[in-house]
Amino acid sequence: MTGRARTGRRPGRPDTREEILRVARTRFAATGFDKTSIRSIAADAGVDSALVHHYFGTKRDLFVASIALPTDPTVVLRPVLAADTDRLGEALLTAILAVWDFENGQAVVATFRSLIAGADVGLIKTFLMHIVLEDIAHRVDEPVGSGPLRVALVASQMSGLLLTRHILSIEPLASMPAHRVVALTAQTLQHYLTGELPDFVP
Amino acid sequence: MTGRARTGRRPGRPDTREEILRVARTRFAATGFDKTSIRSIAADAGVDSALVHHYFGTKRDLFVASIALPTDPTVVLRPVLAADTDRLGEALLTAILAVWDFENGQAVVATFRSLIAGADVGLIKTFLMHIVLEDIAHRVDEPVGSGPLRVALVASQMSGLLLTRHILSIEPLASMPAHRVVALTAQTLQHYLTGELPDFVP
Repeated sequence: MTGRARTGRRPGRPDTREEILRVARTRFAATGFDKTSIRSIAADAGVDSALVHHYFGTKRDLFVASIALPTDPTVVLRPVLAADTDRLGEALLTAILAVWDFENGQAVVATFRSLIAGADVGLIKTFLMHIVLEDIAHRVDEPVGSGPLRVALVASQMSGLLLTRHILSIEPLASMPAHRVVALTAQTLQHYLTGELPDFVP
Repeated sequence: MTGRARTGRRPGRPDTREEILRVARTRFAATGFDKTSIRSIAADAGVDSALVHHYFGTKRDLFVASIALPTDPTVVLRPVLAADTDRLGEALLTAILAVWDFENGQAVVATFRSLIAGADVGLIKTFLMHIVLEDIAHRVDEPVGSGPLRVALVASQMSGLLLTRHILSIEPLASMPAHRVVALTAQTLQHYLTGELPDFVP
């Protein structure tokens, strides 16, 4: 967009990294994950695409860096990807509830809350669908084409738990140990992931 | 609080009604539904409690008026209260999805969204637990003491549907006709309302 005026900036400048992140966040929020390219971000930031890759790796990595999560989702999701498909609901809940409850959970909740309110709501959608649930959608795509619906239903129960437990603080859910919340809701998630979907038409 | 300075204001003044609503909203947000009395609101607004009752009826009615919902929840919930307990999940979903999808739905969603972001998050909690789910909690309190947990779980799935369908616009849920969303999620709600709760201890 306004990138041309900035070419000539030296790649090594310490604020280049920050500028790429700022541009990336704006782009991802405005046009979504799929329609945003590393090239367009590089152009906006007035740098070469290769430099963006050098600093941040893949588009997925750049997205994660741009939303400044205090926890690395790749690490959090590792046990989920390793779980058997018939225990995926339980594994997903256990992994995500641990993030909200412990390591930097408050920062995650605060980020989520401010994104909901603002114009950047698309960032949550991208995060959920491309970072957390994309691999899972492929695994549960049975019958073929049902994967996106299955993970959308999972997103509805998970995001609602975040809302009631951590933002609205509705008791007794708010004060309950995570393992009890898992026991109460894993069956719902597992049903959405691998159960029968009424009237499903691909 | 600062009410005494205002006593003497004539009750009939056209802005008295607005002033009561403004004070009520502030009070409910600050101290919650249970700990807020009509008397304290009247004192803050510099009017007599009888005038508050005259204008607004019960505390519940005043609360509903103070959050300025574009739809009357008593009317919306009538078919839910009339439904058999074993169809409560379906009735609740059908009633609430109709509000979001049709009559003033966008205003409801916008109100919800701005409340989540702001300091008034307690208003959503009060609305959910005292206006929408209180009567239902009594009906499904089996075993005794499980009612609050059952409706908290219902709140988690319902609020998550609002979030994914109307705020995050996650497909295919976002564009799906309401009756299909009901078919996909009524079983979850019904399970939370009347199904077995693992490890429940009253």
